[in-house]
Amino acid sequence: MTPFKLTEEFIGEIEQLIENQKGTELDSLLKEVHYADVAEIINELDEDEATYLIKLLDSDKTSDVLTELDDDVRESILGNLSSKEIAEELEELDTDDAADIVAELPQEIVQEVISEIEDKEHAKDIVDLLRYDEDSAGGLMAKELVKVSENWTVTKCVKEMRAQAENVTRVHSIYVVDKDEILKGRLSLKDLLTVSTATHIREIYIPKVDYVNVNEKPEEVAKIMSKYDLEAIPVVDEIGRLVGRITIDDIVDVIREEAEKDYQLAAGISQDVEADDSIWELTRARLPWLILGLFGGAGAAVIMGGFEEMFSKYTTLFLFTPLIAAMAGNVGVQSSAIIVQGLANDYLKGSMGNRLIKEILLALLNGLILAAILLLFTWIWKGDFMTAVAISVSLIAVIVVAGFVGTFTPLFLHKRGIDPAIATGPFITTSNDIFGILIYFVIAKLILGI
Amino acid sequence: MTPFKLTEEFIGEIEQLIENQKGTELDSLLKEVHYADVAEIINELDEDEATYLIKLLDSDKTSDVLTELDDDVRESILGNLSSKEIAEELEELDTDDAADIVAELPQEIVQEVISEIEDKEHAKDIVDLLRYDEDSAGGLMAKELVKVSENWTVTKCVKEMRAQAENVTRVHSIYVVDKDEILKGRLSLKDLLTVSTATHIREIYIPKVDYVNVNEKPEEVAKIMSKYDLEAIPVVDEIGRLVGRITIDDIVDVIREEAEKDYQLAAGISQDVEADDSIWELTRARLPWLILGLFGGAGAAVIMGGFEEMFSKYTTLFLFTPLIAAMAGNVGVQSSAIIVQGLANDYLKGSMGNRLIKEILLALLNGLILAAILLLFTWIWKGDFMTAVAISVSLIAVIVVAGFVGTFTPLFLHKRGIDPAIATGPFITTSNDIFGILIYFVIAKLILGI
Repeated sequence: MTPFKLTEEFIGEIEQLIENQKGTELDSLLKEVHYADVAEIINELDEDEATYLIKLLDSDKTSDVLTELDDDVRESILGNLSSKEIAEELEELDTDDAADIVAELPQEIVQEVISEIEDKEHAKDIVDLLRYDEDSAGGLMAKELVKVSENWTVTKCVKEMRAQAENVTRVHSIYVVDKDEILKGRLSLKDLLTVSTATHIREIYIPKVDYVNVNEKPEEVAKIMSKYDLEAIPVVDEIGRLVGRITIDDIVDVIREEAEKDYQLAAGISQDVEADDSIWELTRARLPWLILGLFGGAGAAVIMGGFEEMFSKYTTLFLFTPLIAAMAGNVGVQSSAIIVQGLANDYLKGSMGNRLIKEILLALLNGLILAAILLLFTWIWKGDFMTAVAISVSLIAVIVVAGFVGTFTPLFLHKRGIDPAIATGPFITTSNDIFGILIYFVIAKLILGI
Repeated sequence: MTPFKLTEEFIGEIEQLIENQKGTELDSLLKEVHYADVAEIINELDEDEATYLIKLLDSDKTSDVLTELDDDVRESILGNLSSKEIAEELEELDTDDAADIVAELPQEIVQEVISEIEDKEHAKDIVDLLRYDEDSAGGLMAKELVKVSENWTVTKCVKEMRAQAENVTRVHSIYVVDKDEILKGRLSLKDLLTVSTATHIREIYIPKVDYVNVNEKPEEVAKIMSKYDLEAIPVVDEIGRLVGRITIDDIVDVIREEAEKDYQLAAGISQDVEADDSIWELTRARLPWLILGLFGGAGAAVIMGGFEEMFSKYTTLFLFTPLIAAMAGNVGVQSSAIIVQGLANDYLKGSMGNRLIKEILLALLNGLILAAILLLFTWIWKGDFMTAVAISVSLIAVIVVAGFVGTFTPLFLHKRGIDPAIATGPFITTSNDIFGILIYFVIAKLILGI
């Protein structure tokens, strides 16, 4: 496949056609373009052009386009559509995607939009999904699935399945429930086709099936599905009733978003921003962390001010403060990143105490090697052995403490139910800068006997 | 599902049973445990115990277990198996997983192992896959797929499909090829079942199908599959022949690994390590970046040494060097992270020049706000307005340069075909530390007229 490449020329062409109201030509030009690509095009258009295009194209295509648009673009387009037009789009979508769109609509039109949906069963399913927290398995799942009762015969089962499968884009599994809708297991299509038609489902179903609870966190669902290589997983409520199904394509999005969020937090970017967002949005996402860093730096300055009387005699010590701060920051970020990643992947076993001891030993080993290099450098450069020793020994202490803080902070936050990812990046760097410089001067002072 | 939780007790129980050679009990205890969980258990056992368990359990389970094990554990277990035993495991696996294992075997036994595989077609497919670069679509794909010729009739097609489907765990699509094996399109099962049996496939297939080239990078395949919500994608060679198929579960692993790698690079961890790896492995992954940081710090010390004559008179300037270094580092990491993420997701549009101008404006805005805060702080603290102005103006310059370097470096590396992710983390922090301190002292000196 030559992947679709969005060009300025193509967008220009589309804009031209929209301006001249060339509906038929637009329709045939975009016919062969995938909806995800049409969404990319529309993201680049202005509001009127975008609305025109959405109204022009078939709703079985535009409904999918809507789900792929940037949030703000979708919001402005929906603002230009009537409740009936929105309902037509929802009609074409799977319940999970439809519910996501309804959840974004202004509260006052939700009821009207829902009432315009002709398929009442579909409308009911969408409303059901609105009840679930966005950040849960319930918020991810769709109502579309193939479900049979253990009390049915094979004949009835096949007939019912055919009707249900009409609404399901891809049938991954056939789920078996009892008369109270409790999930009992799954059915192998092969078994279904090889037994006599009078057989009851309860005699042939497979009682083993992976499932998740509606309240499960999306990250947990992602872990389970990727660990067990599942392409779909049924979702049950608190008493075990089958209420929906999550497919792997939704999980791929969860994994991507999770990774991006952690990465941005580690880099000191607190909101979901992209390089193409406005300067103002980017500033809001970045400035808070920079201000934190500024306060940290001011704290470091005040601490150093407290050792000002050493300035004239031990100038060399002051030359190395950026080095000390940088090493403390780097070690802290390394330690915390490993812990954050381990927590995210459930890799971490063993107690917190053991982990801290290991990190201290690791930091000690790294510290000794780095201190040896620094000792040689400083001694040769300044020719003052005792100062070189003082700086190097302090460096070891600083690294050990930084490793400890970097390990302890995310573990502690995790225990408290706070996302440990906030402990990486500027937060850990800043606190380690201050700690590091304080430790450095105190130890150096002791060694030099000042 | 109550997800499987690996406990010390359970491992103890397993070890006990292994020691007492209780084969039947082990077998029944682990029967209901998913292979991914068995792999977790075996990762915790010693080499002899692990080998015993692999030899004990059925090879249709152990083959899957092998694919899930940690690399080093798998290597040591395979070292204890005969070529025939390894061949039996490979026999049970899909070709892509089998090829991955063969690629890890010592070169001298590969031929013997392959020759022990009874299914010669399977052996041939595995050997074919060994030709492809691990870091390409060819290295990810499996040979298992359902493929029909456009020249067949429906009758012949159904018969052939049935035979092929035997070897395919999950049939996602039926691919249509011509007599030269060139991929032509795909077949809808529904269409196949509703036309007369004498119809030729060429009359009913859908000529539109997404595919990737064997040489495509895994990240690109992941992007295409997740953008278009595909659960499987066919792979073609340079002349368009259908050679394999990639399924979404392999892509989920690619996305995870990619995200982890970028995250670790940003944190200054250069190898694929986990919190539970040995201190030595962790040191090897972390020390190089720390040494880089050490050199950076030493460089900063030398630069500051060049301004030593200012020490006694402009002490305040020196108190703020950690702040300057920290701000330069933070801004650099923020800018580079946004660019790296944008490049990874193909978000970036427009020219490099525009992007640099935007980043400079952004840095200027952030810099002005931060400088204003710092000016107030320093002025109040030290009561020396001119020094406060000098420090604050320098801060603006430092932030702008840091933003520029943070934006330019990943874009430049990307243009040169180097992974821009290495530009985040310690690399950018360290270079910005040095740059920052140099700029700071030069500008402060100019302003204070020293």
